[in-house]
Amino acid sequence: MSIDYTELKILPRIKKPSDLAGLSDEELDLLSEEIRRYLVSVVSQTGGHLASNLGVVEATIALNKVFSFDNDRIVFDVGHQSYVHKLLTGRAESFETLRQRGGIAGFPKTNESGYDAFNTGHSSTSVSAAIGIMRADALLKRERRVVAFIGDGALTGGMAYEALDDVGQQQLPLIVILNDNEMSISGNVGGLSRHLIKLRSARGYRGFKKGFSSFLKHIPFCGKWLSDRFEGLKNRIKYFILPNVLFEELGFTYLGPVNGHDIRALVSAFEHAKEMDRPVLVHIITKKGKGYEPAEKNPEKFHGIGKFDEATGESKTTFGNSAVFSDELCGLAAENERLVAITAAMASGTGLDSFKESYPERFFDVGIAEQHAVTMAAGMAISGALPVFCVYSSFLQRAFDQLVHDVCLQDLKIVFGVDRAGLVGADGETHHGIYDISYLLTLPNMKILSPSSVQELRASLDWAVKYSDSPCAIRYNRGVLPDREMSGSVEDVLSWECIKPFRSVCVVATGRMVDRAIKVCADLGVGLYNARSIRPMDEETLEKLSHARYIVTIEDGVVNDGFGTQVASYMCMKGSGAKVVAVGVPNRVIEQGTVAEQDDECGLSEDKLRETISGCIGGIYA
Amino acid sequence: MSIDYTELKILPRIKKPSDLAGLSDEELDLLSEEIRRYLVSVVSQTGGHLASNLGVVEATIALNKVFSFDNDRIVFDVGHQSYVHKLLTGRAESFETLRQRGGIAGFPKTNESGYDAFNTGHSSTSVSAAIGIMRADALLKRERRVVAFIGDGALTGGMAYEALDDVGQQQLPLIVILNDNEMSISGNVGGLSRHLIKLRSARGYRGFKKGFSSFLKHIPFCGKWLSDRFEGLKNRIKYFILPNVLFEELGFTYLGPVNGHDIRALVSAFEHAKEMDRPVLVHIITKKGKGYEPAEKNPEKFHGIGKFDEATGESKTTFGNSAVFSDELCGLAAENERLVAITAAMASGTGLDSFKESYPERFFDVGIAEQHAVTMAAGMAISGALPVFCVYSSFLQRAFDQLVHDVCLQDLKIVFGVDRAGLVGADGETHHGIYDISYLLTLPNMKILSPSSVQELRASLDWAVKYSDSPCAIRYNRGVLPDREMSGSVEDVLSWECIKPFRSVCVVATGRMVDRAIKVCADLGVGLYNARSIRPMDEETLEKLSHARYIVTIEDGVVNDGFGTQVASYMCMKGSGAKVVAVGVPNRVIEQGTVAEQDDECGLSEDKLRETISGCIGGIYA
Repeated sequence: MSIDYTELKILPRIKKPSDLAGLSDEELDLLSEEIRRYLVSVVSQTGGHLASNLGVVEATIALNKVFSFDNDRIVFDVGHQSYVHKLLTGRAESFETLRQRGGIAGFPKTNESGYDAFNTGHSSTSVSAAIGIMRADALLKRERRVVAFIGDGALTGGMAYEALDDVGQQQLPLIVILNDNEMSISGNVGGLSRHLIKLRSARGYRGFKKGFSSFLKHIPFCGKWLSDRFEGLKNRIKYFILPNVLFEELGFTYLGPVNGHDIRALVSAFEHAKEMDRPVLVHIITKKGKGYEPAEKNPEKFHGIGKFDEATGESKTTFGNSAVFSDELCGLAAENERLVAITAAMASGTGLDSFKESYPERFFDVGIAEQHAVTMAAGMAISGALPVFCVYSSFLQRAFDQLVHDVCLQDLKIVFGVDRAGLVGADGETHHGIYDISYLLTLPNMKILSPSSVQELRASLDWAVKYSDSPCAIRYNRGVLPDREMSGSVEDVLSWECIKPFRSVCVVATGRMVDRAIKVCADLGVGLYNARSIRPMDEETLEKLSHARYIVTIEDGVVNDGFGTQVASYMCMKGSGAKVVAVGVPNRVIEQGTVAEQDDECGLSEDKLRETISGCIGGIYA
Repeated sequence: MSIDYTELKILPRIKKPSDLAGLSDEELDLLSEEIRRYLVSVVSQTGGHLASNLGVVEATIALNKVFSFDNDRIVFDVGHQSYVHKLLTGRAESFETLRQRGGIAGFPKTNESGYDAFNTGHSSTSVSAAIGIMRADALLKRERRVVAFIGDGALTGGMAYEALDDVGQQQLPLIVILNDNEMSISGNVGGLSRHLIKLRSARGYRGFKKGFSSFLKHIPFCGKWLSDRFEGLKNRIKYFILPNVLFEELGFTYLGPVNGHDIRALVSAFEHAKEMDRPVLVHIITKKGKGYEPAEKNPEKFHGIGKFDEATGESKTTFGNSAVFSDELCGLAAENERLVAITAAMASGTGLDSFKESYPERFFDVGIAEQHAVTMAAGMAISGALPVFCVYSSFLQRAFDQLVHDVCLQDLKIVFGVDRAGLVGADGETHHGIYDISYLLTLPNMKILSPSSVQELRASLDWAVKYSDSPCAIRYNRGVLPDREMSGSVEDVLSWECIKPFRSVCVVATGRMVDRAIKVCADLGVGLYNARSIRPMDEETLEKLSHARYIVTIEDGVVNDGFGTQVASYMCMKGSGAKVVAVGVPNRVIEQGTVAEQDDECGLSEDKLRETISGCIGGIYA
């Protein structure tokens, strides 16, 4: 079923957006179909964001027909739905390299194409970025239109609202395309979602219209006269009654709802928007996963997916650590009625869907709203609950001030399941969880655990729930930690494990790097320690290590301000003669690729580690 | 004019909120007056947030009459308007210790009183915290009402919207008091602000009502009949036409607008809200600075103010560094048309009001919306402008992910004027700018400058604007850096200055600590270096320093993950035998006091520094 790009009829003819102009309506429909087939074919091989792209095929075609993105700018919010835009802007032929090292990125990349206006990856940034572009354009007297393309899910992030507020107040002529697929990643939440449902049905308006017209007709003597006049009044009343008022109140002209799978309707709406010199919001209704049955049926699964069987939609990717964490959490919840779980639109990704099933009344999905999630957790903790917030490391960055201000300064007991910590592979630089050690280290009262095995992951969570009296972050990588018997009991998670006894050269690894270090060190005469707690560090072990000649630290995070830095500064401040060699992610942009490729780039592969450690052994005799 | 608390008639009788019950209407009015006089008297001596508290006197009295905050909970957003609440909840007598070490805090503090439900200080957190409290209450089957008290300014922060969205969707019976004083700190911005103006005037409703009624009367035959029926229809139409729809659409029942200086009206509205078992928003209109003429006339000045003359309102506090930065920026803007300045509701605090006057079309105040500010700056930079964002260090925390995701990963040239860096004194722990070195160090491409004098502050900005090709943060403290001739030119700001030549003991200070180090080291035989760039560090100097026996680092930031840590880890990794002694802010909560007191607590006072350095000198001979 895999598709040969060169055998497609229309898509290979589209080398740039202006090539769309020559296509008939039928050809445009065929193009849509070809794009869908090609997307399914490629993503089944590469993994990626499928459902959202299948949903925006027609909208992206229409946008590229109406606007000239050689000059005009479009900012895709999150950017996972930009595949179709890539296919229409000269990247169709190389699209089979999607999300691979050196290939086409899974998100917009300005260094990949001039048609990508701004890099995205995280949610709710598009309107702000678009405003910035417009304001610079105004300053530099540049004439072009700027479009922000944002999903209803991304609108649950407060930052988008900050920006919409600015557009409305300043009456900036921005065009916002609200792509309403009736869900954020795991089902939509929030008052806005209610509002959108009303917009979609416009029942309020239709209901009122019917009732009011009937009311008028029953007025004695003048009913018909009045009813006839009603049409004239209608538009004025419509403004008040149609529930588009939310966006109108924010200062936007609202257009829609538009069928997001009807290219003609879309083109007409976008052209209308383009003609207006004020803030416009075009509300389009799309179906996530459109045209591929498995994705239509299960859009959440096909939001971001690994390789899958194109025919059946079966996927083999499992996120082992997330599932383990959630499983352990369910067990703890059975014992502790105060325990609650929180997610920011990632119930499935973090494994919490199983918790949700078991404890629906103790499960809270706040939408893509990490700031709210963290401060809400603080409110829960101060009021006697025990919140566990499961969140990807790179998304927890979005609540940094809430960590400082609401959690750590108040020293509240909250557990953070910091998922996708470390290098994440194909999602690339925006999604790496490599900054968490650094930004968590600076917080008062925060503990940081870094388990190296499934057993330690469970024990870390047990410890945080049962023994900690402060905020505690547990970081674990995307994927599966190994099965390895834990040394000591739950109460020992703050102490480091000695895997191979002290030598002149000692290796200290943390998290998923421990298993690799065990392999690498097997035949090298070095000491090996498992730093399963990054904060506090195990002072007893550090004291022992201070007598080493070389200490090699290995971590899955930025190295210039992370675990290795802490060990090195400890040694220096204690006056130890030990020289620390810190291995970790260099502080520069690490682009997409497999985790293995990224590890190798960062000196974290087995070969590179062996080389580094051997170099230290050599150093002793130098 | 200073007031003796014991001579007040009513306030000293209020030891707890329930004492309000016994007061007559006249006594309540007298109480309001006494509170105002007492607030002005105390704050003129201690400095603090005056205007906002003068505005909420009646509202706070009414809240404490209607609710029982022994059991019910109130979360004050930002918390700078909680003084009146403190006065009514047993803290009136000790209120003269406001913002002093060991005294009454300028913000709510749970460890100060059981009547304070949640610590605040930063904006837009109250609704999230209140939701958390309510959800824990529900879990623990606790019966009480929860109130969030939030200003219209704080509503420009997107996080508040994330939370309102959650309340509306889940129909949580939260009571939100929207304190609408028609401005955030420096004048309100945003579409919401437009909406509130409409609510205040309710012109939409009144205009429509008049027109519709007149329309009905002119209908032939049945005009009077219809006009009579109109009253019945009115309520239904009112719902559609009153511009409260924004909050209604978010799922709230809207009550208001209520005169926020009429205790009877407020009590009645709050009682109505209390009876409802669903989300309610009570919109109260208050006047910032109410009752004290200088503050009414200039509420921004009296938002947060130092000591002032009670009779005239004259204040002597100046924020020297902010003014210097803005002055330099104006000069650079004259030469560079692409330069724009951004603030998040802090035009006055950051000194940008002078820039605003000179370059109104290149000045952008986005409201309390730091996330939006940073990403908008990224959009501007990618589109060819040169944005300078002036922001307090502790508020830049709110845009950490935007720094990572939008600025640093894209390596965009943006200048951050990181104001109020380091310990800030009376505002206490939520406002310290002590985490910035740490959280900026982890970002790819980010440079961090830390000038030690007015001259270096100007040169740092010049360098960032003229020579940098990456994001660059310039951190400077609240207050005034000294006037000291700069060594070298603008192009040398990345190199460290040698103030006293190399010795076995060397001191490396940064920012405002350099001046103090000069004094301390004057009569000690030690080397002294001025680290005016924290990133990059000056490797040439570091190489020299690696031959020292002791290196004492001195910084105005958290020490466990900051500048000293970087120096220490450098020495260790280079195999230097130098022992680093890092002096800085310990990683725990440093409460309010004067900066001098906080410095001393952190070992940063002259005496403590001398002791530390002398200890190292002693160590050489040990």
